[in-house]
Amino acid sequence: MVKQIILAERPKGEPNKEAFKMEERELPELKDGEVLLTGKFYSVDPYMRGRMSDSKSYVAPFEVGEPISGGVVAQVEESKSSDFAKGDYVIGNLPWATQTVAEAKELRKVGEEDVPLHYYLGVLGMPGLTAYFGLMDIGQPKEGETVVVSGAAGAVGLVVGQIAKIQGCKVVGIAGSDEKIEMLKSEFGYDEGINYKTAGNMQEAVKKACPDGVDIYYDNVGGEVSDGVIMNLNFHARIPLCGQISLYNSKETPTGPRIQPMLLTRSVLMKGFIVSNYQDKFPEGMRKLGQWIREGNVKFTETIVEGFDKLPEAFLGLFSGKNQGKMIVQA
Amino acid sequence: MVKQIILAERPKGEPNKEAFKMEERELPELKDGEVLLTGKFYSVDPYMRGRMSDSKSYVAPFEVGEPISGGVVAQVEESKSSDFAKGDYVIGNLPWATQTVAEAKELRKVGEEDVPLHYYLGVLGMPGLTAYFGLMDIGQPKEGETVVVSGAAGAVGLVVGQIAKIQGCKVVGIAGSDEKIEMLKSEFGYDEGINYKTAGNMQEAVKKACPDGVDIYYDNVGGEVSDGVIMNLNFHARIPLCGQISLYNSKETPTGPRIQPMLLTRSVLMKGFIVSNYQDKFPEGMRKLGQWIREGNVKFTETIVEGFDKLPEAFLGLFSGKNQGKMIVQA
Repeated sequence: MVKQIILAERPKGEPNKEAFKMEERELPELKDGEVLLTGKFYSVDPYMRGRMSDSKSYVAPFEVGEPISGGVVAQVEESKSSDFAKGDYVIGNLPWATQTVAEAKELRKVGEEDVPLHYYLGVLGMPGLTAYFGLMDIGQPKEGETVVVSGAAGAVGLVVGQIAKIQGCKVVGIAGSDEKIEMLKSEFGYDEGINYKTAGNMQEAVKKACPDGVDIYYDNVGGEVSDGVIMNLNFHARIPLCGQISLYNSKETPTGPRIQPMLLTRSVLMKGFIVSNYQDKFPEGMRKLGQWIREGNVKFTETIVEGFDKLPEAFLGLFSGKNQGKMIVQA
Repeated sequence: MVKQIILAERPKGEPNKEAFKMEERELPELKDGEVLLTGKFYSVDPYMRGRMSDSKSYVAPFEVGEPISGGVVAQVEESKSSDFAKGDYVIGNLPWATQTVAEAKELRKVGEEDVPLHYYLGVLGMPGLTAYFGLMDIGQPKEGETVVVSGAAGAVGLVVGQIAKIQGCKVVGIAGSDEKIEMLKSEFGYDEGINYKTAGNMQEAVKKACPDGVDIYYDNVGGEVSDGVIMNLNFHARIPLCGQISLYNSKETPTGPRIQPMLLTRSVLMKGFIVSNYQDKFPEGMRKLGQWIREGNVKFTETIVEGFDKLPEAFLGLFSGKNQGKMIVQA
């Protein structure tokens, strides 16, 4: 018998403990091409709130009565696949369960980069890879350019800034508190920071922080913060569109200044993406990030909660700011 | 003595004849690296209206008392440059003058494609090259995809649709009259047309014309027409941003629905450009367009007015719809 955590009911507004239920379940027998896994580290992420509703999105909603799932680092206990041996560590989109049976082809082997295993849920996982491909493939940073990052203190933004520094850019972070701005500058190599809650006119604040204009705007938030940055774009600027978190709770279609005339007259490129667009290149991204971590050029911060049973509590803690950086549960 | 047409005063609102004045002027002596040219074909374009005002733009305004200038095909009368010989035809941004002295390095030789010379101001000139590079480089059309073109009956749009057909795409044009839609379909190979003035709900009209969604949206107009198209974009769609003519006369910053969430969730690329970004590749574009014209796969339509003195009248005619396709004055 293994423990698993299911979606008990769809929350309305901010979720609470009633949304989750712990169950025991028997595991099915292992078939060819499958492996038996024990969970080690579980990722809890704000995007999971969206999957708890049944509204349409490009990620399917969780089912009521079925386990919550997400990024998990697990260890192989038993294998009927030639791809994995007992003792291997793997990562995959897996249920919140102490043990589970999974198809080998849905898993990726990890643990060869000589970094802590939970890094595969953060700087070497989706947040790090999102930062890497958005900045490097869409942003195409060049030495001496100015890079602005919104949501800079988030799990993605922290890494974007550090990669941009490695590329020889000036890096300006936008975040929502003076403490975050201070952390970006003192610990994560950001050159300048803008607290959008106290900055007043964003266009002026960005202009002051970026006297040479903005060459790359890595956008995690959208809305009025982005309006202010876009007014400062240079000719041939690039905008990797990674998130629009300021608009996620809008009930009606949000409106704002039309940006196309600006993109047109300055020959700007804007491109939306999700990290899975780059699935074929994940090994390249992980190799690069792993190298920079070992060299000390990319640092990361996380909050690790101990105990499988704490998964719901850790998830709910995201909404009251209980985490610094990536939030992870260790079984 | 040569004749030239100067900007007499900056027009307010729609320009009239008072804005222009014909003058006679003596030509300077030819220096090394220069050529003496006789004008053959003169381009008149709506964008010139913008240069007659002194508001800031990425193209400098015309000076009052100085000649109007634009795209001109001219013949070399005398050359002090090893790049050109007497009798050669050239194209350049040249003054509205019967003859002029120009620096050789500002000119490009034309006439080797076995097409009428005035084509270098249209299908083999800026409009054709704008169509070619925006569609091919930013749009990257693939066989079987659906391409929507706004401003489809304009000098650029006519060519975009025909190139997209050559690439094996389904092509839908948006224009402002049933006559234009009919012309697009019967003469220029468009599969479907939408008259945005009578279509009602643009989102629904585009959906009906594009049941498989939109893969490329070549945007010449912006505003509400574009809002309707953008709601129908497919995953990985591309938007070459070529013009935003619906917004050019706005006195305040135009507002509308924020498009970033749509571009994000569908991994869409949007890129603004001006044709001069592709200057290094003009020979490639002209070779391709020339080949398609000779093969009969790209057609073009223009209105040719005879007589250098008619330049102001031809220009003013653009605003009362006196032209079909590209408007050109032959000296």
